[in-house]
Amino acid sequence: MKAYVHVYLKRAVLDPQGKAIAHALHELGYKDVKAARQGKMIELDIADGLNKEQAEESIRKMCEDLLANTVIEDYSITLEAA
Amino acid sequence: MKAYVHVYLKRAVLDPQGKAIAHALHELGYKDVKAARQGKMIELDIADGLNKEQAEESIRKMCEDLLANTVIEDYSITLEAA
Repeated sequence: MKAYVHVYLKRAVLDPQGKAIAHALHELGYKDVKAARQGKMIELDIADGLNKEQAEESIRKMCEDLLANTVIEDYSITLEAA
Repeated sequence: MKAYVHVYLKRAVLDPQGKAIAHALHELGYKDVKAARQGKMIELDIADGLNKEQAEESIRKMCEDLLANTVIEDYSITLEAA
């Protein structure tokens, strides 16, 4: 089973990387971009023994333990059958 | 309009960051993770004047110009109405 974990800075947290992207796009002439934010996308390949609920619960723990810094970041989990 | 650009290493390209994540998860006891890969997720806030086709075309150009290194990376674009 594939799982996608999107880890992104909380709205209230300044995102200099996103600002740099928006600035660079403006310099290149893409004036329609009002703002940009950059996050991480982690793709996990999960063993097939787990059902969706177990997998999601396990991934949530992984996020809390390792994948996200929950002081400044939020995350969302998307599961996809293999 | 919000647009999400997922930039990820091509399958054939080694992803040391992903390997490090998988290794760390194993060390923490998450044995169900068979593999991990890490990519970038860029969230763009696009001015409302464009329709979906124009926005997608414009974002595709941004990816080719700046957001992705198409020698080693692929990208996918998801548009979401505001």
